[in-house]
Formats: sequence, C-alpha cells, structure tokens
Amino acid sequence: MDREELFEKARLGVKEAFVQRDRILIQTILAIGELTKTTNLLSERLSEWFKIYFPEMKAEDPEKYCALAEVVDKEKFDFARVSHLVGEAKARELEAKARASLGIDLQNKDLEEIRFFAGKLRAHFELRRQLEGYLEGLAKEVCPNLTHLLGASLSAKLIAQAGGLAKLATLPASTIQILGAEKALFKHLRSHARPPKHGLLFQHPLVGMSPKKERGRIARALAAKIAIAAKADAFTGHFIAEKLRQDFEARVKAVKEG
Amino acid sequence: MDREELFEKARLGVKEAFVQRDRILIQTILAIGELTKTTNLLSERLSEWFKIYFPEMKAEDPEKYCALAEVVDKEKFDFARVSHLVGEAKARELEAKARASLGIDLQNKDLEEIRFFAGKLRAHFELRRQLEGYLEGLAKEVCPNLTHLLGASLSAKLIAQAGGLAKLATLPASTIQILGAEKALFKHLRSHARPPKHGLLFQHPLVGMSPKKERGRIARALAAKIAIAAKADAFTGHFIAEKLRQDFEARVKAVKEG
Repeated sequence: MDREELFEKARLGVKEAFVQRDRILIQTILAIGELTKTTNLLSERLSEWFKIYFPEMKAEDPEKYCALAEVVDKEKFDFARVSHLVGEAKARELEAKARASLGIDLQNKDLEEIRFFAGKLRAHFELRRQLEGYLEGLAKEVCPNLTHLLGASLSAKLIAQAGGLAKLATLPASTIQILGAEKALFKHLRSHARPPKHGLLFQHPLVGMSPKKERGRIARALAAKIAIAAKADAFTGHFIAEKLRQDFEARVKAVKEG
Repeated sequence: MDREELFEKARLGVKEAFVQRDRILIQTILAIGELTKTTNLLSERLSEWFKIYFPEMKAEDPEKYCALAEVVDKEKFDFARVSHLVGEAKARELEAKARASLGIDLQNKDLEEIRFFAGKLRAHFELRRQLEGYLEGLAKEVCPNLTHLLGASLSAKLIAQAGGLAKLATLPASTIQILGAEKALFKHLRSHARPPKHGLLFQHPLVGMSPKKERGRIARALAAKIAIAAKADAFTGHFIAEKLRQDFEARVKAVKEG
C-alpha cells in the first residue's frame, strides 16, 4: 500500500466510527424538544398580538388558533374556510362574535403581518409533527427493543441523556432509573434531600400515572428492563422486548396488588 | 336614544379606546425579540445535526449556514446553486471539502429531514427580516420623534417596557434612563450595590460605545431628550426630534471634551 492508500484506509476507518445512527436519533429528539419550546413561545405571542384585533376568538388548541388567525377576517368573514377548520356550528358562532367584536379594526397591512407570522408558525407545527413521524421510524430501526418497551420519544430522550446508545447500554439499572434527575440527585448528595425515584422514566405512563408510593418500585423494575433492552439494541440486535414488556407488566401488577 | 343605540355607543367608545397603534408596535418588537431567540436556538440545532454529515462545512453566519445545509449534497454537489449562495471561490473550496469529508454518508431520507428543517428555519430568518422592515414603518408612524432620536427598534423596546406610548410619555427622565434595568435597580435598593446608569439605553451607540465613565452622563442626557420626544409623539404630534438630536449630540460632545 502506498501513502495515499494508507490515508484512504485511515479515512474510511474514521468514517466507519461515525456511522452511528443513534447520533441522528439524538439530534432529532433534541430538535423536536426545541420546536415544542419555540412553538409554545410563538403561539403565545400570536394570540396576544391577534387579540388586539379579535379578543373574543378562542380555539381548542394553539395550532387551531394559529390556523384561524391566518384566515379570519372580521369584515370579510370567509365562512367556507373557517368552517373547513372548525366545523359549521363553531364557524357560525365565530362569525357572530366577529360582528360584535370589541377589538380594533386593523389596517390591512397590519393584519397581513400577523397572518404572515401565523403562516410561518403553522409550518412550525407541521415540521414538529413530521419530525415526530420520522423519529418513530428511526427509533424502530436504531433501538427496536427500547422502542417496544418505551415508545420512540422516551427511548430517544434516554439515549440523548446518556450520550448515545452504546453508553446507555453500559449504564447500571440504578443509573438509568434516575437519568434526567441529575439535579435532584446532586441535591440528595449535598444535603439531606431524598434521592430521586425517577427522572425521565416518570414520562412512562405506568410510572407517572401510578400512585406516588408505587412509582419508585415501578421505575426500578422498568430501569432493569431498559438496561437489558439497551444491551440487546446496542450489541446483539436480537428482539427480546416482548418478553421484557410482559415481565415488566407482571411486575407492575405484583406491585399494585401489594 | 333607545337601549340598543346606547349599547352601540358604549361599544364604539370602548372600540375607540382600543385604537392605539402602539399596542401593535409592542407586539411586533416582542415578536422580533422572540424570533431572534428561537432562530438562534434552532440554528445551533441545525449545525449540530448537519455536522454529523458534513463536519467541515463552515459559513459566515447562521443564515448562510442554513441556506447551505438546504442545498449541499456531498455526493451530488450542485456547484451552480452553492456558488449562487457563497460565490465561486468559496463554492470550489466547499466542493473540495465535501470530497474529503469525514462525516458519515447519510441515507437520503435522513438528509431530507435535515433539509426540511433547514427550509423552515430559513423562513424564520426571512420572517424576522420582514417584521423588522414593518417595524420601521410602524415606528415612524406611531412615534416619529423617538424613532428619529433612537431608531425604530430601541424606540419600540422602550415603549414596550413602559407599557405603552402614553405611559412612556408620563415617565420622568430619571426613570426612562434606567428602563429595562429593573433588576439592577432593585438590587441597589436592597443592598449597597451601585444604582444602574442605564438599562435599554445602553443599546444606543452613543451610550454603549462610549467609555464607561462617560456613559452615565450621556444616558442621562439622552433620557431627558426621550422624555420630551415621547410627549411630542403621544400628545402634540409635532416633529421636534431634529432639534433634540442636535442638542443631544452637542451634549455628548461637551461630555467627551470634559
């Protein structure tokens, strides 16, 4: 091999080391989290802004509000478009409110800016939804066992918190149990505060929705299964999560029956 | 007048009270501030994400990086589009880097998600720029005197901080001087910390870019002019800001000459 070929080989070796699709998974879940934050922030801004014009308008959620702000004109109420968004009954209600509104009548150019803002915000909601769909597929591919046990979102958050799938797979169950509760852990180590019972695992419905006194035991049982699932995803590639899930659910049942 | 007409009159009265275009100005400057924050956050995410694929890519600013991330493909390098963005010389450089890149070769679907994200982020940059243009016009209309003295952005921030143009116009110059430095003010009142010399006014170049020991005096002189300009904008509608600006600049000169 000559010098060039050696370089090429070294280069490919480094390249190989980079082929870790969990890195993409981590970026995706972080992006989704940040989109949630920014979407909330900008939604609040939109509603405060649009309220100058139409304070009486309400919607069932921020995304619907955003879509309405984009099309609702108090003077030229487009009934067809509005009822396409919220149904006929609600559109009729909104039309009546628009007629009696105490909001100020904005100039067209002012309204256009708000609508432009609303349009970009709507794209934000769509982007987040699209990335969530993408994450589902990615997680099934990168960590099928974890995903079967926890769902795509929580699996990705744990991997991100651990710094990668291989790192998660080497953590003891006791560490996995409190991943994401580092602040509470350090408080415990510093002072006489109680140790955290769960961090991210609180987001699993069987942990978060159980009575407080059961959560610790359930989180510990779940963490033990996660430790096994992560090793399977990182090293063997076998699918063993159905068994893990059944064991975990049996354990939860045992806890609940005392 | 019958009952209905009285209601109508009351309704119009309330409506009149709502016709305060400074409220729109406030929403616009707040939206711009939040877009700056979210754009920074999502830009950092994009670059961390895209680095998995092409760690060697650099750009002169986040918006350029975003536009590049949307079009750069290491395998099928589109020289025309890239050189349209950064010029021929830099495009050639980037093409060479792409060929030697140590980043991992992503699957098409992974790359598409990143590009989709980049596209939405680019729209964010455009939205902010558009709102900044809109703010310029709005500020000239709502507060021509303040705008002549401070520019649209700083004028809008002061009005937002005060809670409206009329409120700003009733504040004493000493309060205007430290608007936006409330935290430092309360610290001063609580403890022996020094009182703040400026809050938002630090953003005026003649304040922020002056030597530290001159800033207090310059901020005080500027605040005095702002108090007058705000009164003119809120109550009389006369344009007196050219005179105010000249006086202020003369005062700055006097301070600098000791």
